[in-house]
This record gives sequence, C-alpha cells and structure tokens, in this order.
Amino acid sequence: MLSFESDYTEGAHEKILEKLLETNREKLSGYGKDIYCQNAKEKIKSLCHCKHAEVAFLVGGTQTNATVIDALLHSCEGVIAPSTGHISLHEAGAIEASGHKVLEIPEHHGKIKSNELRDFLQNFWCEQNKEHMVYPGMVYLSHPTEYGTLYTAKELQEIAALCRQYKIPLYLDGARLGYALTAQNTDVTLPLLASLCDVFYIGGTKVGALCGEAIVFPKNNMPKQFMNIVKQHGALLAKGRLLGIQFDCLFTDNLYFEISAHGNHMAKKLKEIFQKYHFSFYIESPTNQQFIILNNHQIEKLKNHVAFSFWERLNEQETVVRFATSWATEEEDIQALDSLLSTIL
Amino acid sequence: MLSFESDYTEGAHEKILEKLLETNREKLSGYGKDIYCQNAKEKIKSLCHCKHAEVAFLVGGTQTNATVIDALLHSCEGVIAPSTGHISLHEAGAIEASGHKVLEIPEHHGKIKSNELRDFLQNFWCEQNKEHMVYPGMVYLSHPTEYGTLYTAKELQEIAALCRQYKIPLYLDGARLGYALTAQNTDVTLPLLASLCDVFYIGGTKVGALCGEAIVFPKNNMPKQFMNIVKQHGALLAKGRLLGIQFDCLFTDNLYFEISAHGNHMAKKLKEIFQKYHFSFYIESPTNQQFIILNNHQIEKLKNHVAFSFWERLNEQETVVRFATSWATEEEDIQALDSLLSTIL
Amino acid sequence: MLSFESDYTEGAHEKILEKLLETNREKLSGYGKDIYCQNAKEKIKSLCHCKHAEVAFLVGGTQTNATVIDALLHSCEGVIAPSTGHISLHEAGAIEASGHKVLEIPEHHGKIKSNELRDFLQNFWCEQNKEHMVYPGMVYLSHPTEYGTLYTAKELQEIAALCRQYKIPLYLDGARLGYALTAQNTDVTLPLLASLCDVFYIGGTKVGALCGEAIVFPKNNMPKQFMNIVKQHGALLAKGRLLGIQFDCLFTDNLYFEISAHGNHMAKKLKEIFQKYHFSFYIESPTNQQFIILNNHQIEKLKNHVAFSFWERLNEQETVVRFATSWATEEEDIQALDSLLSTIL
Amino acid sequence: MLSFESDYTEGAHEKILEKLLETNREKLSGYGKDIYCQNAKEKIKSLCHCKHAEVAFLVGGTQTNATVIDALLHSCEGVIAPSTGHISLHEAGAIEASGHKVLEIPEHHGKIKSNELRDFLQNFWCEQNKEHMVYPGMVYLSHPTEYGTLYTAKELQEIAALCRQYKIPLYLDGARLGYALTAQNTDVTLPLLASLCDVFYIGGTKVGALCGEAIVFPKNNMPKQFMNIVKQHGALLAKGRLLGIQFDCLFTDNLYFEISAHGNHMAKKLKEIFQKYHFSFYIESPTNQQFIILNNHQIEKLKNHVAFSFWERLNEQETVVRFATSWATEEEDIQALDSLLSTIL
Repeated sequence: MLSFESDYTEGAHEKILEKLLETNREKLSGYGKDIYCQNAKEKIKSLCHCKHAEVAFLVGGTQTNATVIDALLHSCEGVIAPSTGHISLHEAGAIEASGHKVLEIPEHHGKIKSNELRDFLQNFWCEQNKEHMVYPGMVYLSHPTEYGTLYTAKELQEIAALCRQYKIPLYLDGARLGYALTAQNTDVTLPLLASLCDVFYIGGTKVGALCGEAIVFPKNNMPKQFMNIVKQHGALLAKGRLLGIQFDCLFTDNLYFEISAHGNHMAKKLKEIFQKYHFSFYIESPTNQQFIILNNHQIEKLKNHVAFSFWERLNEQETVVRFATSWATEEEDIQALDSLLSTIL
Repeated sequence: MLSFESDYTEGAHEKILEKLLETNREKLSGYGKDIYCQNAKEKIKSLCHCKHAEVAFLVGGTQTNATVIDALLHSCEGVIAPSTGHISLHEAGAIEASGHKVLEIPEHHGKIKSNELRDFLQNFWCEQNKEHMVYPGMVYLSHPTEYGTLYTAKELQEIAALCRQYKIPLYLDGARLGYALTAQNTDVTLPLLASLCDVFYIGGTKVGALCGEAIVFPKNNMPKQFMNIVKQHGALLAKGRLLGIQFDCLFTDNLYFEISAHGNHMAKKLKEIFQKYHFSFYIESPTNQQFIILNNHQIEKLKNHVAFSFWERLNEQETVVRFATSWATEEEDIQALDSLLSTIL
Repeated sequence: MLSFESDYTEGAHEKILEKLLETNREKLSGYGKDIYCQNAKEKIKSLCHCKHAEVAFLVGGTQTNATVIDALLHSCEGVIAPSTGHISLHEAGAIEASGHKVLEIPEHHGKIKSNELRDFLQNFWCEQNKEHMVYPGMVYLSHPTEYGTLYTAKELQEIAALCRQYKIPLYLDGARLGYALTAQNTDVTLPLLASLCDVFYIGGTKVGALCGEAIVFPKNNMPKQFMNIVKQHGALLAKGRLLGIQFDCLFTDNLYFEISAHGNHMAKKLKEIFQKYHFSFYIESPTNQQFIILNNHQIEKLKNHVAFSFWERLNEQETVVRFATSWATEEEDIQALDSLLSTIL
Repeated sequence: MLSFESDYTEGAHEKILEKLLETNREKLSGYGKDIYCQNAKEKIKSLCHCKHAEVAFLVGGTQTNATVIDALLHSCEGVIAPSTGHISLHEAGAIEASGHKVLEIPEHHGKIKSNELRDFLQNFWCEQNKEHMVYPGMVYLSHPTEYGTLYTAKELQEIAALCRQYKIPLYLDGARLGYALTAQNTDVTLPLLASLCDVFYIGGTKVGALCGEAIVFPKNNMPKQFMNIVKQHGALLAKGRLLGIQFDCLFTDNLYFEISAHGNHMAKKLKEIFQKYHFSFYIESPTNQQFIILNNHQIEKLKNHVAFSFWERLNEQETVVRFATSWATEEEDIQALDSLLSTIL
C-alpha cells in the first residue's frame, strides 16, 4: 500500500547500511569511544563552524529531550515550551517523570512568539512569591515545529536574546532538522543555530538513519557529568559505533543535506498534487510534513489505499491529516498518489 | 590489536545485517507495530513454550532494567538485588532516578542464596514499623551473573517459590542469556525461565545484535500501560523494525543458540590456554566471561598487545581482569592469544 | 497594622491551644497512633456519615496534594486540574517532582466545567497513539476554589459521574473546606462530598489550626501502603498528637463549622463595606476570600495602612487584590477597614 | 503505663506552649517571614559564632533530610551514609524517591570511619568507567548516631577534611543534637559543627518542640532557590510562626541545652539502674538513647509494665531494645523503673 504515514517508515539510507556492513568486524570500544563517533563529531563541529562544540549521540528523540532537559535544569526549574511542543504533548510525560514541569506558552502554527515569551518571563520575575512557583529554567523549541513550520533567523535571534537576558539556556529540538536547513527561503543555518542555541540536536531517525540523534553543545558547555546522566536515562548505547557510523556517513559528502532536500522536494510535489485537486491545507508548511484538511467522505475513500496520519479533528465533517515525505520517498510514490486521487475523487 | 575487551566490540551477526538490507525499503509502521516485531514475538513465545507470553523490544540493558522495574514497582517499593547486581553498581543510579531503592543482599560469585533472601523477606515482614521502610517489591537476578556464573534450576525454583510466597515478581536480567542457555551442564532452559520468572529479558546486544533486548512477560502479565512507561523512559524506538528484524533473525534457524554456543566454546579454549600457562582464575565461570588473576608485571606486559577489562584489585600485586569471548570471537583470536602468551611470558 | 493578607496570619483557635496544654504531658505513641488521632478520625467519619471511611492527618496542603496524588496515580498517569488549580500554579512543581504531569483544562472563576472535562476525557480515549501521551488518572478540584467560588451539588455530581464512567478517582482539595460548607446557599455537605469523592481533605491550617489537613478516603479505599508513601514524602509527623488533638478539638461541639461560618460572616461585612465605597469585585465569592479591583492610586494609598494580597494585574491602571477574612477576624477589624476607607478615599 | 518508648512521647516544653498562647493573636506573615523566625535565626547564628550563616526551619527530620539532600545533589550524584543511617534504613526510601542513591559504607556503632570513607572516595575516583556509576556527591552523618554514639572533634575534622579534598559537602543530621552537645566529655560544639559542616540541622522534635528542625548553612551557602525546593517537597509551613516561636523559645535563656542536659542526666540514672540489675548493654551510649540486651523471658515480664522500643534480634534468646529518656523524663519515671525491675526480676 502507498504510504505517507511518516518519515520513519523505511530503514536507513543504503550508504549507511553498506558502511555498517563494511566495518562490522572491526573491534571497537563501546559506549561511544570509537573512531567513527570521533569522526562524526569532528564533521559536525566543522559544519557548525564551532571547533569548541561538544557532541554526544543518543538513540531517539524523546530520550534525547528527557536527558538534555534533566541534565540542564535544576530541581526547582521547568522548561518553557509551546503548548504543541513534542515534550508538551507526545512524550508520555517523560519530562515530568524526571521531575520537571513543562511550562506551556501559546503556540502559533507550532511556534512561540518572542513577545509572549518576554511577557511570561517578565511576569515570573515580577512575582513576589516565587518560592511557590516553578522557575523557568530553559526554553524549548522545535525546528521544524511539529507542524512543519520554520522560525526565521530574526525570530530565533529575538528568542535567544531573551534567553541570554534571563540567563537560561535555549534548546532546539531538531528531530527533523535536515528538512529545515534545506527548505526553500530559510535563512537559518547550522552555524547560526550553533551561535544562538545553548544546545540543540540534529535528528537522524527521521532523516535517513536507523536511529540516532546528535546532541550539540556549541559553547564547550556540556555539563561535566553529562554522559553519566545519559547512562542514568538508559540512553548510553553499548555499541556506540551504531550511532557513530551512521552520523559519520550522513555527514560525508553532504549526504544529510542532499537527502533532506530530496524529502522537501517530494513534499513540494505532493503539495502541488493536493492543490491540483483543490484540497485545503491546514497550515503552510515549507518542509516535509504537509497538513491537509479532508472531509469524512474523503477519508473513507482514501484510507484503504494510502496510509497517512490522523492529526486533529476540525469539526464534525472535517479532519486534519498529515502526509509526510522523507529522504526515502520516490517519484513513483508521488505519481501513484496523483493517480489515486484522480481515480478516487 | 587483539581484543577480548567485551562481547560488544563487533557489530552484528552478518545474517542480521543482510536482513536489514533486504527489508530496507519496505514501508513499515513505527513503534514496534510492524510484521517483523510480530514474527519475532511469535518465535520467542514458541521457544518459551508459552503462547500467552507478551513480548516487548527495547534498545539496551540499563534502559530495560529501569523500565521494567519502574513499571512493576509501586512508589513505596524497592527491588532486592545482589550487591554486585548490574542495577546495584553499574547503571549510574537509573533505578533510584525513577524513585526506587535497590535493596542489596549479599552476593556469592554474583548470585544470591535463597536462604538469605528468605531471611531478608522474613525480617521485613516481622518488622513493626514497616511504614518507615522500603517494601521489597521485586527480586532481581542476572543469569549469567556479572561474574559469568549460573544458577541451577533448583536454585531458581527456590527463589521463585519465595517470590510467590511473598507475592512479589521475580525478574531475571538476561543481558547474556544465550551464553547461559548454551553452557555445558546447565539445566536451565527458556521454558523453565518462562515458568519461574514473572518477567525476564533475552539479551541481544551482547549476543550478536547491533542493539536490542527482548522483554518477556510469560504469564500474560504485561502491565496494562507498559508501552506508555516504555515511551516515558525514552525507550520506544520509532523504527521498531530495527529490533523486530534483529530478533526475528536471531530466532530463525536456531541462530541465537548457535552463536552463543560458539562464544562459550571459544571461552573454553581461552580458559585452557590460560590454564596451560598456569594462570589462576578468580572464579569458575562456565560462560563467555573469564576472570583471570594477573600480577602487575603481567598486566604491563600484556596490555599493549591485547585488550581486556580491568575488574577489581585483589591486592598490591594482583588484579582481576576479564577476558570476554562472544559470538564474534574467531579461532584465530584464540591462537593469537596463545602465541602472545607463549612469547611474552 | 490592619491585615486581611490571608487566613493564616494568626495562630490557632484558643480551644486548640488549651487542649495542647492540657494534654501536654500525656505519654503518647508517635506517628498518629495516639488516642486523639483515633478520636478525631471517629468524629470525622461520623460527620461524613461514612463509617467505613479511612482518615489520615498531614501537616500542610501542598504536602497533602503531592502525597495523595502520588499515592493514587500510576507512573504513566497525570492529574486533570483547572489551569488555576493550586497544584497547577502554586506548589512549585511538587506534583511534577513526583513524576506526574498536571493536565490543565480551562478554568471558569477557578472551576472546571463538566462538559469540558468530558471532552478532554473523550478526546484522550479516542486517540490512537495513547502510548505517546499522559493518561488522565485523576480529577483534581478545589472547593472553595482559589477564587473563593463554590461548586453546586449538581456540578459535583456531574463531575463525579464522569470520573466513574472513566474509572478515575475524584480528589477534592478542601484547604478552606469549612468556609465552603458554611457558605450561604450552598447545597454541598460533608456527607455529599464523602459520597461523590474518592478522596478529599478537610483543611485545618486555614480554618483555625496551627497546621494540619485531614485526608478522607470515604470508601475504605485508602491505598494499602498509604502511610508508607506519607513517610516517603516526609509527611509523617513524629508527634502525631499535634494533628490529632487539633482535629479532635475542631470537631468537638461544632467548632470547625462555627468558626468557618464566622469567617464567612466577616467576609460578607467586608464586602458590604467595599460595596458602600463603590469598589468593583473581580469575582462574586461567597466565601472568606474577596477579590477586589483597585487602581494604582488606591493601592498606593491603602498599602501602608492595611495588608492584603496582590492577585493579578488587570491592566496598566488596575489590579486584582485579595482581602481574606478568617475564623480569627474580629468585628473591630472590619470597622477599622471602614474607617480607613472613609478617611483615605 | 511507664514509658521509655522514645523521646517524642510528650508534647512540648511548657515555655513553648506558653509563648504560642501569648503570641497567638498577633497577625504575622506566613511562610517564615515573621519576626519570630527572624529572631530565632539570629540566635542560632550567634550560638554558631557564624554571622553569615543562613537558617531555615522545616517540620520534621525525614522531610529535612530529603529536602537538603535533593537541594544539594546533582542528578547524577548519591549521598554516602553509614549502612545504619536514618536515610539508609528508616525513611521509606525518601532519598531515592527524589532520585538519589544512598551509597552505603560500613558502620561502627552507627558511625563511619574516615579511612573507610577515604577508600570509598579513592576507589570511585580511580574507576575508569565512572559514567556507569553514581557519583558520591555528599557525606551524611548523624550526631548522635541512631545508636546514641558520638563523633569526636578529631573524627569530624578528618571526615570534613576528606569532604573538602573531594569537594563534596558534609551534612550532619542533628535530629537529637541537643543530647550530643550536652553529653559528658564531648568536645564537639555548635561553633565547631558550623566550621566543619556545609549544612547541618538542629533537631527540635526530639528536644522539646512540638515539631521543627532548624537547618543551618554556616557558610552563606544556602542554594539560591532553596526555599523553592522546600516548597516543592511540601515542606514550607504556611504558619511559619509555629516553627519560629518554638526555636526562638528554645534558644532563649539556654533552654535547649538545659533540657538536653536533663535528658542525658536521666539516661545516666537509667543506665545505672540497669547496671545495678546486671543487664548488658549492646553499645556504650553517652546520650539519651540506651540499648539494652533483654532475653525473651525478661521481655515478656517487662512489656506489660513499661513501654520501650524493639531494636534488633541478637539471637534466638536475646533482643536489643531501646530505652529513651528526654527533656520530659522525670525523676519519678526513673524511680518507677527501679521499683519495677526490683519487683519483677
């Protein structure tokens, strides 16, 4: 069956699998102390224009969020996030499970606004009885957001400036960062992120890896016992090579950016097809996730022929669904969707 | 350099890598809802002679221990473990991080004794002021233990009987379970474990997989919202196929048992070589980990030619070190060790 | 200085202090196993018309909320609360510190609406990917709310019916319960609460005690190891007599209700005075907390003569402030406020 | 019935109750911001010879331990304690509930030895794979210990020196500190503790208060948001006056030391009586807790006439029991015990 269900429905880019096979019998130390992890770190530091950066590889996104946030917050602190943030809604309370409140502020197509962030921080620091409240200890953003939208450089600069003013770290969840960095018209680059964020991660799982996320502390600011917190969160992989080899491969010969750009290109084509058939979009997304409004009738007709994700109900008749492309989407998939829509509707 | 540093210095059994490559472009649902996870579960249930068993796949050992223990214990409960248990010593406080005390009892070559377990439980339940104490809510064992030793069927039966008497679950950490099940003279089998334990896991990472542990709840007793706890622990892999395919492969054509038996066979040969050169063993281990006593002089001479693990200091002159074989150890490795010892000593 | 800052600015009702003095040298067992705790429990059970109720005494409100919620929720569950609930805003993240998310739903003058609660629960249970989300495991209400408002019996019945339908407990925070039960025109009684709630607490600290809250499990449903969780939360008082004697005293000769009614009566008078001077009220409160809108000028003039609490800014010119009466407010305090307002404005 | 069950079987010293009564109607701000808390803090700072000390008042011992330890440890750290420490055995896992392991080292009559502490710290810092282990982040002691024994100044100095060498705080649990400071032949004083410890608490509950413990940070080193952590632990008392007035009273006219000395004096008399009747002592205790060995026959005979605490079984025939005196023990109690023993044995 045709599937646009998510960007993690296939395995890994073939170059990764080949490299795993090729290096398979090399005897390497565990826990990330191997040469491939080392290589991958160097490549990431170079791409970030940030030779003092520190990098760590973890397996998945929720794990990464929970570990980074727990490592950076004090007991009395919470993390500010948009109400649609992944940590707010879709991580089964992982942040709270490590003792920290997610301090939700309003979202606008998945993004937060710097003026609302400023208000939140100002109000807190004006409060007289702060000992009864959760201290805002970090700002969390996703880029692209859970709605596929992007911040501009200016928006990120404003948010980062507030974080500096209030002396709290800015953390950017880049589960799908490749699609953001290669989107059309974006002015956000890896070096810019490295200069603005206190920590961010470059997602692998949704951008061609079997698994893996690369955490970057750009300012030589990895907490001293960070790998200990990683282990405590059950996030220290014995065969660290699995992550090192994948990221080494993704950051060789521009692969990460090429396959991300491909995913975006496929999304653009998918979008054009839906436009051709006069569908409405819930949101204008420049990346690989597209949010389309379907009525009940359309859902019934489509769901047995193509897999997609339910997002949210709009009203009795209409629902928002997500079609995702990825590094693995092929032209034929797009054509098959076109045929399907033309036949079925 | 020659290496017996651990049983996770190589990648994965080649059959696994081939299967990953072969299935790579199949579009599969995420989070373990794919056909390979399904197949692997069926094979495990069948090998356990346990059609009502429930199986879940996680990425690593510490993650598995922390998740299972957190899922099964109430807030006021701790887990009984030998003082050398992996959860007691080498998981960076992951159990405590989820709020539970590890209640340590004495170890004997890594094992607990049922009479000492009985005493501990009896004493607790005789105590008048139980509300000031941590309730023993589970028993944790490793098999093989961290010292490579094995329980007998009778020993496990006695421990399981106590768990039933005190109505607490028995949890067995099988990070290296393959090496235990294929050891010479063992009378412990998978169906026996399934009948005695309330939950156990079959280790993949150290037995030929890139990563992955298979948790078995043999009595249809997986907690209702277990997968939610898994997610909360950051342990729900997006591309669940990576685990499903590996375990499907390991439990096809007896692969898991064959490669484990090979690891044990290599350990036997390694042992004979050390015996030939009159080394002492710290412990009699029937599995793939061998604990050898080296003096400072020997360590100095060996350490630049062969990698091994420091275990513990015995005294000013002597140290216990670990040499580990695995599914990946080759005859040549053993021969090279023989040559090395003959040359160097 | 005149003070309406809060309902905990004085010590305790004198009858309590007398009783503490009178019983001071009696040798009593610790940790709540004394005769006064026993007596107080019997009196509460009787007032609740609930002979199977179980009662426990804790020291303060946040402690009580954190302990009860932690004891009743599973690891994967959160607690539904209005966005202005005490646990949402003013307990420094105590609920999250024990690992649970506060699932905020809209508030209406501090109250939740049953139809919005129904929608929240329905939406959750319709969700396909529940393992990524926090399970709603309890409903939390305050009565009176943080805004002094009250639920009607019918409103509580509707909420309780939903809790039963979704098989989750209803927990009512009664930090100021006395003022609710003795408000004019309320149809909510202790026996009604005992029949509708799965657990609630009767506040002492703000109703005449030095400290102390009485938790009631009306359905013989105190979790088996509840006192252990209490101890774990640092909430088991060594000299339990301090709580037993106070509640025994409060529930002798109707004292609790008499002094609460007095607090409400004082609030009514205070309200009439503010009305006489044409002040606006932010909210219509039938209990001992009154929320008045003051402009900057009025605040400047008043704040050196009378203590009150800042609540929230309305706009550049106006602020909501709280004036609280209590069991300890005297007629002269009210008269002094009248004189002050007449002089100053 | 005669009772030596514990040092918290009576209410409070009468001077405290009188002061509570006398100040009862004063309108005071909540949460410890009242004049009595202020006064008590000044008196404690003065007694510690430590004008830069910071003091906070909490309600009980377990609460204090859990709050202080949680406030000072990082996520990856545990607290070193003797295996008989209160936090190790009798706090229902409160330390683990906030995510931290209690790292137990051997005890000697309730005390730790500095050489064993040195070994533990040295071994940890020699360890190569520290990221798999819990970092030792604090040393916890009780003084007097749970067995009534005392450290000497020299012993504390050695331990403090190690803490400084390894840059971890020394925390002293002074639940019964009064009895330690007024014991015969002790060379440990409040100013000494203030110079050696990074934080300690002066116990009120067991030394004449209804409840209350005074935490002292002698080096102007209270964590910046400590009161927030206190609130998060449910340990911020609304009517802080209850604690302030009690400690103000205890540290007026030497009351705390006088009543402690009285408790010790009573213990000495009690000891002489047991010696007169040729009982054996389990331990030589210079403070208010005495540990006596009784055989089964003696227990049977005594237990209906005098209350005492079961401590631990020695063997089939003999049990260690605790007789505690306190500020409230009267000469007549001691005489009654003498009569009882002479009659019954």
